[in-house]
Amino acid sequence: MSALRLLRPTVAAALKPTIPRRYVSAFGYTQAKALIFNDYGAPKDVLKLHRHSISPAYGDEIIIRFLAAPINPADINQIEGVYPSKPAFTITLGTPSPAAVPGNEGVVEVVGVGANVKNFKPGDRAIMKHTAFGTWRTHAVAKDENLLKIPEEYKELNVISAATISVNPCTAYRMLKDFTPLQPGDWFIQNGANSGVGRAAIQLGRIWGLKSINVVRDRPEIEELKEELKGLGADVVVTEEELADRQFRKDLKEFTGGKPPMLGLNCVGGKATTELIRQLGEGGHVVTYGAMARQPVTLSASSLIFRDVHAHGFWVSRWSDKNPEKKKEMVEEIFGLIKKGEFKDVPIEKTVWKNDTKEEELKAAVEKSGQAFGGKKQVFVFEE
Amino acid sequence: MSALRLLRPTVAAALKPTIPRRYVSAFGYTQAKALIFNDYGAPKDVLKLHRHSISPAYGDEIIIRFLAAPINPADINQIEGVYPSKPAFTITLGTPSPAAVPGNEGVVEVVGVGANVKNFKPGDRAIMKHTAFGTWRTHAVAKDENLLKIPEEYKELNVISAATISVNPCTAYRMLKDFTPLQPGDWFIQNGANSGVGRAAIQLGRIWGLKSINVVRDRPEIEELKEELKGLGADVVVTEEELADRQFRKDLKEFTGGKPPMLGLNCVGGKATTELIRQLGEGGHVVTYGAMARQPVTLSASSLIFRDVHAHGFWVSRWSDKNPEKKKEMVEEIFGLIKKGEFKDVPIEKTVWKNDTKEEELKAAVEKSGQAFGGKKQVFVFEE
Repeated sequence: MSALRLLRPTVAAALKPTIPRRYVSAFGYTQAKALIFNDYGAPKDVLKLHRHSISPAYGDEIIIRFLAAPINPADINQIEGVYPSKPAFTITLGTPSPAAVPGNEGVVEVVGVGANVKNFKPGDRAIMKHTAFGTWRTHAVAKDENLLKIPEEYKELNVISAATISVNPCTAYRMLKDFTPLQPGDWFIQNGANSGVGRAAIQLGRIWGLKSINVVRDRPEIEELKEELKGLGADVVVTEEELADRQFRKDLKEFTGGKPPMLGLNCVGGKATTELIRQLGEGGHVVTYGAMARQPVTLSASSLIFRDVHAHGFWVSRWSDKNPEKKKEMVEEIFGLIKKGEFKDVPIEKTVWKNDTKEEELKAAVEKSGQAFGGKKQVFVFEE
Repeated sequence: MSALRLLRPTVAAALKPTIPRRYVSAFGYTQAKALIFNDYGAPKDVLKLHRHSISPAYGDEIIIRFLAAPINPADINQIEGVYPSKPAFTITLGTPSPAAVPGNEGVVEVVGVGANVKNFKPGDRAIMKHTAFGTWRTHAVAKDENLLKIPEEYKELNVISAATISVNPCTAYRMLKDFTPLQPGDWFIQNGANSGVGRAAIQLGRIWGLKSINVVRDRPEIEELKEELKGLGADVVVTEEELADRQFRKDLKEFTGGKPPMLGLNCVGGKATTELIRQLGEGGHVVTYGAMARQPVTLSASSLIFRDVHAHGFWVSRWSDKNPEKKKEMVEEIFGLIKKGEFKDVPIEKTVWKNDTKEEELKAAVEKSGQAFGGKKQVFVFEE
């Protein structure tokens, strides 16, 4: 039994000065709120805001307070029940029937630790080590194995960067590194270049000396978007229509010095992906990490056999679960790039989540994020 | 200048006793016949039988006599002009306009060598080292680098085995070895299991301790075919319809002990390939080497991302050109298996090609081979 547990709860609470007083009841319990769902379905139908209390940390428990948590497409799919990684449905939040908390990514501050916790102390910051923890909530009880500590030198980086580092930048990082060896000066091509992963790939590419062809959907403010992505380090930004144009492709071939891209990053599917694959050199690799057009990847036998194209998929959750040590190194490397100002976050839209924020406001943010091909990334930012 | 060249041609011819007399003219020239084409097109329209003579071997020249040469689907595509590896059009055969000789695979006997030839002597046997040499002819002039010598111990194996070893058995061999490590007891799955590559994969799988699920198209004599393939070592033989059946798939899962195949060999395309991919375990690989249904390979984003399926193609010509030493080793290993009686040829239909065989008879064999999904492999067997 932890030493703190032997004290009266009020005394224990007094000894945990980092728990803001307003969340700590007279008996040392933390008042928490969480978005939950009991059944899979459309977020607007199934999400509910649930209030519960968390007892003081005991044994190996770590009480965490969320600082920021983004709304990713995978989170929505998970609520809809169409995502292969399922959240845990549990009654530990005091719901009448088992409920799950959505959200896979987030940054937290440790506000209390049980006596057996060795690696964390109040005030530490961490991101989630694995997916499916449930991050759309103000507080939670975690264990050591759920958290990846942010090193002291990066603790003061803004919470948005920390909250959004695990999924998109890590996906871009692994896809550029793990499928085919690229040397400085080599080209890669990607569609959905305006996405979070796309922007991360542009920047990591620039930092590593790679050159990128970036395909985006046409839109009214296309020139501004092209300039914006070039500002991040994109070498070429083209619309899908431009890429499908024979003359344009010829010009592009000259522009790249006849050195075709050997890696293609795909998050669209269907015709857009066929066009992307057409650009790959012999022996090239296409890596799929999304399907915004909700269409499959189609490969002609001739691309596979004679052009020796290889097709793969990348799922950051699987990778992270298999490579916890490499994930730690990679995250710290990206934190370093952020600190040096070399790596920028995607444009986001904040929804401030305070103690009195209404369910409707939170659900409105979720709805906005569900709009494919548009809008900024939605992020919950928690304020006391 | 070669010593032989200094003699009068008739004397030179007399010193090359292995050239059958009927092919050697009074002046030491070999009378040769070749199927040729001047333009790409349907074989029946463009193929012509051409007669020409070959001067005695000079310098590094090697005069070869063909013993057997198969008609492969790729040969037909090459004549049609739809194959990426193009034959050389040349006027060295004495044609009024440049002509190419079709045929990529074959076994030859050396009948004459120039003075500078070190590695070959009359009586040696060889297969073609690379594709696109032009094998549908009675004789040709080759160089050392065109030929892969058959070791003495395998010289007396039947000519059909030797003529058909480079494409199908080698394709099956590499696909089973090079894409994912399989251990004895592991399963693979293939469609078009009745094809030359399919039968080779069944046998190599059996020899290496692998277990195979073999998918074939339904046909009137399906039970005989199933028994025949099981006789070669197939563990499971199923029709496409059976594989698409949910209950059957469940039974199959039990049969394989819940150990799904991690490798799929595909030569069909379209729906049949989708069904094959569905059987692969997480992290599995599908390798395409043909497209009998003339349809592409379609991969859902979910197969790629969540099931981590990888798609590749295999083209034996590219592999052989890149790996001449490994090809030599592999061919000798397969010759060894044939000699031990462990590896059997596919069922074939011979067309005997004699000096007086008519163009129509040769073209009829080519026509027969063009019939997709049926019939036996057509092979030219040359007789003096």
